[in-house]
Amino acid sequence: MKFRITIERKPGLADPEGKATIRSLHDLGYTDVQHVSFGKAIVVDIDSTDETAALDEVDAMCQQLLANPVMESYRIERIG
Amino acid sequence: MKFRITIERKPGLADPEGKATIRSLHDLGYTDVQHVSFGKAIVVDIDSTDETAALDEVDAMCQQLLANPVMESYRIERIG
Repeated sequence: MKFRITIERKPGLADPEGKATIRSLHDLGYTDVQHVSFGKAIVVDIDSTDETAALDEVDAMCQQLLANPVMESYRIERIG
Repeated sequence: MKFRITIERKPGLADPEGKATIRSLHDLGYTDVQHVSFGKAIVVDIDSTDETAALDEVDAMCQQLLANPVMESYRIERIG
């Protein structure tokens, strides 16, 4: 069972990568870009047949290792 | 107009971050995890009312700056 975890910085937190990228995009002529923010997309493949249990497991992984719940929010979706 | 760009490494390319993460997950007891791969999720906000033109613009940004088309594949979706 495959899940995609999308991890984004919580609003209001500094995003230096986003700031640098928006500057570069403006320099390249994409002047209508107003905001850029960077996050992570992690795909996890689990050997399981129980979707509810697998989702709970992915959520626990996010809390324990993959995300930083203080600074980041995350979303889990099944993709396969 | 808001778009999410999901950038993933092309299959077969080394993913050291994924390898290190799967080892840590196994150590933590998540032994049914078979594969982990890392990518980027970039959210771009564009001042535009023409969806087709904005999508073309985001695609050009990916080709020129945000993704490495040799090593990465990307997907663009409108989210707002």
